[in-house]
Amino acid sequence: MSATAFLQDFHHVATIGATAHNGVERQAATAEDGRTRDWFAAFVHDAGWQLQVDGIGNMFGLLEWTPGAPYILIGSHLDSQPLAGRFDGAYGVIAALHAAKAIDAEVAGSGTAPRYNLAVVNWFNEEGSRFAPSIMGSSVFAGLFEREQMLDVRDLAGTSVREALGSIGYLGADTGPEVAGYAEIHIEQGRILEREGIPIGLVDSSWYTQKLDIEVLGEQSHTGATAMADRHDALVAAAKIILMVHDVTKDFAEEALVSSVGQLTLEPNSPIVVARRVHLVADLRSGDPEIVRAARAKLLQDIDALAKEHDIKVNVKDFDIRPIRRFPEAGLELSEKVAANRGLTSRRIQTMAGHDSVAMNTMVPSVMLFIPSVDGVSHCEREFSTDGDMLTGVDMLTGVARELVAGALA
Amino acid sequence: MSATAFLQDFHHVATIGATAHNGVERQAATAEDGRTRDWFAAFVHDAGWQLQVDGIGNMFGLLEWTPGAPYILIGSHLDSQPLAGRFDGAYGVIAALHAAKAIDAEVAGSGTAPRYNLAVVNWFNEEGSRFAPSIMGSSVFAGLFEREQMLDVRDLAGTSVREALGSIGYLGADTGPEVAGYAEIHIEQGRILEREGIPIGLVDSSWYTQKLDIEVLGEQSHTGATAMADRHDALVAAAKIILMVHDVTKDFAEEALVSSVGQLTLEPNSPIVVARRVHLVADLRSGDPEIVRAARAKLLQDIDALAKEHDIKVNVKDFDIRPIRRFPEAGLELSEKVAANRGLTSRRIQTMAGHDSVAMNTMVPSVMLFIPSVDGVSHCEREFSTDGDMLTGVDMLTGVARELVAGALA
Repeated sequence: MSATAFLQDFHHVATIGATAHNGVERQAATAEDGRTRDWFAAFVHDAGWQLQVDGIGNMFGLLEWTPGAPYILIGSHLDSQPLAGRFDGAYGVIAALHAAKAIDAEVAGSGTAPRYNLAVVNWFNEEGSRFAPSIMGSSVFAGLFEREQMLDVRDLAGTSVREALGSIGYLGADTGPEVAGYAEIHIEQGRILEREGIPIGLVDSSWYTQKLDIEVLGEQSHTGATAMADRHDALVAAAKIILMVHDVTKDFAEEALVSSVGQLTLEPNSPIVVARRVHLVADLRSGDPEIVRAARAKLLQDIDALAKEHDIKVNVKDFDIRPIRRFPEAGLELSEKVAANRGLTSRRIQTMAGHDSVAMNTMVPSVMLFIPSVDGVSHCEREFSTDGDMLTGVDMLTGVARELVAGALA
Repeated sequence: MSATAFLQDFHHVATIGATAHNGVERQAATAEDGRTRDWFAAFVHDAGWQLQVDGIGNMFGLLEWTPGAPYILIGSHLDSQPLAGRFDGAYGVIAALHAAKAIDAEVAGSGTAPRYNLAVVNWFNEEGSRFAPSIMGSSVFAGLFEREQMLDVRDLAGTSVREALGSIGYLGADTGPEVAGYAEIHIEQGRILEREGIPIGLVDSSWYTQKLDIEVLGEQSHTGATAMADRHDALVAAAKIILMVHDVTKDFAEEALVSSVGQLTLEPNSPIVVARRVHLVADLRSGDPEIVRAARAKLLQDIDALAKEHDIKVNVKDFDIRPIRRFPEAGLELSEKVAANRGLTSRRIQTMAGHDSVAMNTMVPSVMLFIPSVDGVSHCEREFSTDGDMLTGVDMLTGVARELVAGALA
């Protein structure tokens, strides 16, 4: 692996959709997402690999050494949140491209094909900021979501996934490779590795997560002329719900539950009109499903009491429930060995965030690796990981992928 | 005045921009606003009056009996809030058209021209929901706002007032009439007249009002992966501010202060991102300026403490401060007399809402009349006033306008 080539590529891709303060904005199937896709396609082409694009916009670069053999898939996603950092997702795709290039050269040099072929993937819409739900492309690939249903999802401007992918030229017709195993590397987006000075995290499980779709229905009235006692202000009730969603975390051990409201729309949204309707999305996550269930039950109860107190209607719907997923023990042990062989310390870690690897792990044995995040911040422009940590990660991923194509988890 | 003709016109105009539940939606300078304007222009044309449209979209129908004499102006506005009622504004314009028609016939019949000429006005953008500030057209006419500055105001989609008025063909070049007095009739939008069984309210003063522009600046981060303790969630802080704005009313006598947050935008507004920025607009109103000032001072203090507690930045700016305006005593006495002559009870009343008459009263002696609102609700589809109360109001406005053109307030 050429450290210079990797870093050049990484920092070049960070210029696509660059924002004022060292971040990027490349929401799924926007023009900026299209430009990183063009870059990915050019890399695959220049390396002499075969490019496939499937019917939900996932891109695959295929290295076929043994015709007909299944593939080990490595990669992540190039799309981003609005005003996001340049590491989330993009690091994993570019690391995978360079890991594949190194292994390709080894295979060519050795003259012997390994048991499995290798492919690099750029998953469509991991972030879900423009089109919900998130982790869309890999979930369709893994058979967890219906492709047609996802193609019909629309953004707030009314554009469908189908239209958006078509408009940037990435609604493909390929089926993608037959897969035997998956590996992904990603920034931690937390501060455990940084605090403990450990360069590699081995993800053993994902947190239990769920969302609540909450619709608050008050009555529209005149801000100036309507007496306070006569109002049914949807925004006042919504403000109380936002605080309930935040405060419910205090009922449990410190950081055992994280929650937030990240999306809110207000109608009619006029300075002199009392709000008629507020729609909001709450997100609950914990390493322990019982904690999420208990928090949800408390919220439903409190929201019900609030609706009665304010004489308004609140509709709450569960959606996007994601159970705890455990990564296979064999992959964790394999990764520990690969790290130890390089003289790297590593530790097992849970992921609070969702990842494409969580979807892929339902389909094939999967390995998920983390590198440290400075200050633990992510989904913002000051998200940061060092060049040194990134290079260590590329080397680690290369080692794991080398073992996987040799059949270590077969 | 023909009751049938008035009611036919009123209920016809309510079909323009009609909503599903008996309301209308005709925000300023939209296509729907354009269609009510076309209707107004046709009425003026059919009556044989002269139409003028000025440089901020105000429309005037001029009845010139005495060449060169100043005009008494009567009217209101045909624009509406989103999903609004069909009475707010439109009632006053259509009442004025029919009052003018009745007086025109009297003048023709008598063969003598009164002291003043008469004009009917449809003011541009009273509501301010699409383009802030509200009461835009009459305030420009009265010299309170700069025309050029108002033409540059943009809506949330980036369209300017200049562009929007141009696109519906109502950016005129006329100056409008020279005005000697103004009268307007409107629904109360409160429940005082209904509760007391009084058909006519005589507005003696407007409430003191002001807005606060509040920008809450947190830090964007990952909803899933960021520990609760590491977050600077702009929406949680904004929710507390929304409740502060609501709860500050409890520090004063019942209904002495009304307040609300009606407009809010959230960035980046993604379900799995902790909010970076929330912008909101708070509205404070009272019959007593000291109450608004005390509430504002308490809010600024509480918001400052909140910003420190959450380690975030909150920027607060005062805007749209409107002092108490008193309507002239002579106009109130004149109106009392007109009502009594018709056998109608009336009472003096304050207006909590802003009106075009408040702007016009800074320029010329003005009279503001109210008719009852059922349940006191307004700015919503179930806003309602009865045909009978509307007809009583048209007759009352006709009587007042007849006195004004005769020079009663000169």
